[in-house]
Amino acid sequence: MTVVIDETHDPALKSWVASANGHADFPIQNLPLGIFSPPGQVPRGGVAIGDMILDLAGAVEAGLFEGVPLLAARAAMGDTLNPLLAMEAEPRRALRRRLSALFAEGSPERTKVEPLLHRAQDCAMHLPARIGDYTDFYVGIHHATNVGRVFRPDNPLLPNYKHVPIGYHGRASSIRASGAPVRRPNGQRKAPDADAPTFGPSQRLDYELEMGIWIAEGNELGEPIPIQAADRHIAGLCLLNDWSARDLQAWEYQPLGPFLAKNFLTTISPWIVTAEALAPFRIAQPPRPEGDPRPLPYLWSEEDQKAGAFAIELEVSIASARMREERVPPMRLSRGPASNMYWTAAQIITHHASNGCNLQPGDLLGTGTISAPTDDGFGSLLEITRGGKQPITLPTGETRTFLQDGDQLFLSGRAQREGYVPIGFGPCHGIIIPAPAA
Amino acid sequence: MTVVIDETHDPALKSWVASANGHADFPIQNLPLGIFSPPGQVPRGGVAIGDMILDLAGAVEAGLFEGVPLLAARAAMGDTLNPLLAMEAEPRRALRRRLSALFAEGSPERTKVEPLLHRAQDCAMHLPARIGDYTDFYVGIHHATNVGRVFRPDNPLLPNYKHVPIGYHGRASSIRASGAPVRRPNGQRKAPDADAPTFGPSQRLDYELEMGIWIAEGNELGEPIPIQAADRHIAGLCLLNDWSARDLQAWEYQPLGPFLAKNFLTTISPWIVTAEALAPFRIAQPPRPEGDPRPLPYLWSEEDQKAGAFAIELEVSIASARMREERVPPMRLSRGPASNMYWTAAQIITHHASNGCNLQPGDLLGTGTISAPTDDGFGSLLEITRGGKQPITLPTGETRTFLQDGDQLFLSGRAQREGYVPIGFGPCHGIIIPAPAA
Repeated sequence: MTVVIDETHDPALKSWVASANGHADFPIQNLPLGIFSPPGQVPRGGVAIGDMILDLAGAVEAGLFEGVPLLAARAAMGDTLNPLLAMEAEPRRALRRRLSALFAEGSPERTKVEPLLHRAQDCAMHLPARIGDYTDFYVGIHHATNVGRVFRPDNPLLPNYKHVPIGYHGRASSIRASGAPVRRPNGQRKAPDADAPTFGPSQRLDYELEMGIWIAEGNELGEPIPIQAADRHIAGLCLLNDWSARDLQAWEYQPLGPFLAKNFLTTISPWIVTAEALAPFRIAQPPRPEGDPRPLPYLWSEEDQKAGAFAIELEVSIASARMREERVPPMRLSRGPASNMYWTAAQIITHHASNGCNLQPGDLLGTGTISAPTDDGFGSLLEITRGGKQPITLPTGETRTFLQDGDQLFLSGRAQREGYVPIGFGPCHGIIIPAPAA
Repeated sequence: MTVVIDETHDPALKSWVASANGHADFPIQNLPLGIFSPPGQVPRGGVAIGDMILDLAGAVEAGLFEGVPLLAARAAMGDTLNPLLAMEAEPRRALRRRLSALFAEGSPERTKVEPLLHRAQDCAMHLPARIGDYTDFYVGIHHATNVGRVFRPDNPLLPNYKHVPIGYHGRASSIRASGAPVRRPNGQRKAPDADAPTFGPSQRLDYELEMGIWIAEGNELGEPIPIQAADRHIAGLCLLNDWSARDLQAWEYQPLGPFLAKNFLTTISPWIVTAEALAPFRIAQPPRPEGDPRPLPYLWSEEDQKAGAFAIELEVSIASARMREERVPPMRLSRGPASNMYWTAAQIITHHASNGCNLQPGDLLGTGTISAPTDDGFGSLLEITRGGKQPITLPTGETRTFLQDGDQLFLSGRAQREGYVPIGFGPCHGIIIPAPAA
């Protein structure tokens, strides 16, 4: 595992892009990569800095890169970041150092860079990569326990949970960047006391707070990824909302797992916050509780245990349509650290490839819902409302067990650690719109 | 549903390509599409006819198409068939009619076409399309019952089975064309009486006999596909071997379904046998057994019930390394009709999109294992050997409960119906190679 903290992380570093200094998400220490469209233009690669986005193709054309950073910038300037993700970390790191120098206060290139900046609020954001396969894991142990209690009261955490980083394949085609409307799905559901299922709009629509892991270099089919090498397959992270129709899920999920309950849409934050930007925020994986089994050797690396987790604080808020009309700010539903993961990102990757399954640049892995052990940190309404039994009250007096049409959900994440400038992920939100006629 | 049987299906039709006449798979009535490489050349679109493959790019260049067939041929001549699949059925049908005329005995174009044919045995076959998402269903009710009995003796067929076409997402990246070696996966497995799992080569490696459904036109996210329109989203069929590591599966599959037990490799026959070619082989869906629930209205169409199934006979054979050395022909493991599906292809597609999930051209759907109700038609070793308890004996005297390294599995399929020339799918085989060091 190579965690490089260099001059690009210097907390004293300021940018001539004024909005970057003190920016909650995108100070000069972040420099996330994404695909954006300036007004009326086609999608292209960009870098977020404060409230602005740098057009990488323009910067290449203006001669702002040479050598390795030029190779990386060229791989990032098209309409997907897959070519960049396919590269090793070093070109990404070289691009980052060059971008940091270009944006730094006093940069001699400021006059060349400034015309290539677009106001982020005027631009459309797209998925940063063509996602070949999307896999969703289940490593939030408090979530797994809470949900298990709802679906299997007598058997919340199954015997494999502490041995296997449980995961399953999700749907790549329905992943959307923040802001895409979320159409309530129709589907089959059966009340426990009903004789037969009915078909119609989901009555128990929920969100799930997750992080997404973008895969960099892949592995060949049949060639596992040793845990010691797993880290270099991580290109970066994003926020991920795994919208879930609990009534559809309860009826369909046995024996092959969730399907239509999940694949109607998944929302992600569209910026890849790179592994390089996150280097200062690597922390030790919390020790396993006393008595828990030690993972099998293929999943165990002392080095990974020392720096395999991320110091990221996650938060979810809600705003109903009425709250937005009455200009009531969103209400926080939960807050908690991303370190509430029973398995590290490296363990997830190594397990995924342990049978020879080939990961590819631009694949996306969801962590699974990250809940804290206490009520104020539950990552889904299923948990917060105890399976819909304990409604919550919004500031307008409205109540919710599950999501109503017009509700808007916001995820946010903030990497922070003493001695470093905090960085964030940008917006990850969606508004529920009504189901089509069934 | 539009089932067009036209002059291209005429059983009297012969080809000047001599090997096509009487060919088990590829007579002139089939004309399947695929992606192939002639020796030393790059992948390109082709059409199988007898023992030969027509190079579509060459045929376009030679001026053999015009009008709508030209548009379709152009969409099929690149290195994937996705552009063709994205088209409606009519251009595909027009291309088929033109190809049939070009290959027909007495065709005036024979001298132009002949130099564009490659011997299939000299060519490499590739996946016919870039597969965006791969979904595997579970509609073989006899298989579901048999397997359920092994994993859940007290509860073989779950209460949702006769209401929901059960499916789950599979791995697109590890799908390979017939002939690719199948590396035995390592993985976690736990014996029922063991305290803890171990990691190593799967001891219960199995195959599953399935059909694959290639998706033609897609649907927009949020827009379901009515059952009446589902049929036109079927581009064609292939054979599919869903290799399965039963020991990994038993330990990992709860609560989110099979994952590493399946995603190490899936083998398909590389030719898309088109919906147009299969038109004469559409038959009525077998009636549901007395007492079974009627499907919910969104899954029900009288027209689909009348012609939603396919008259295809499926077969699996095995040859051990020793059998191949001793030139003993492969031994048949099972044979049975593809109509042993509890749900039709149209019902599968409609269900998949019923929540708004977007299917895309080139997506692949597996039917799930198609077993017949009797021993001689079981589609996996898990069923044939009763969960590994009753070994089978090969002609060499070797025995098998599950697959050994060196074993080669063959799937074959043959569409046949009185009054029509039978057509097939071409080879779908793979040899098991040893697991990498764990």
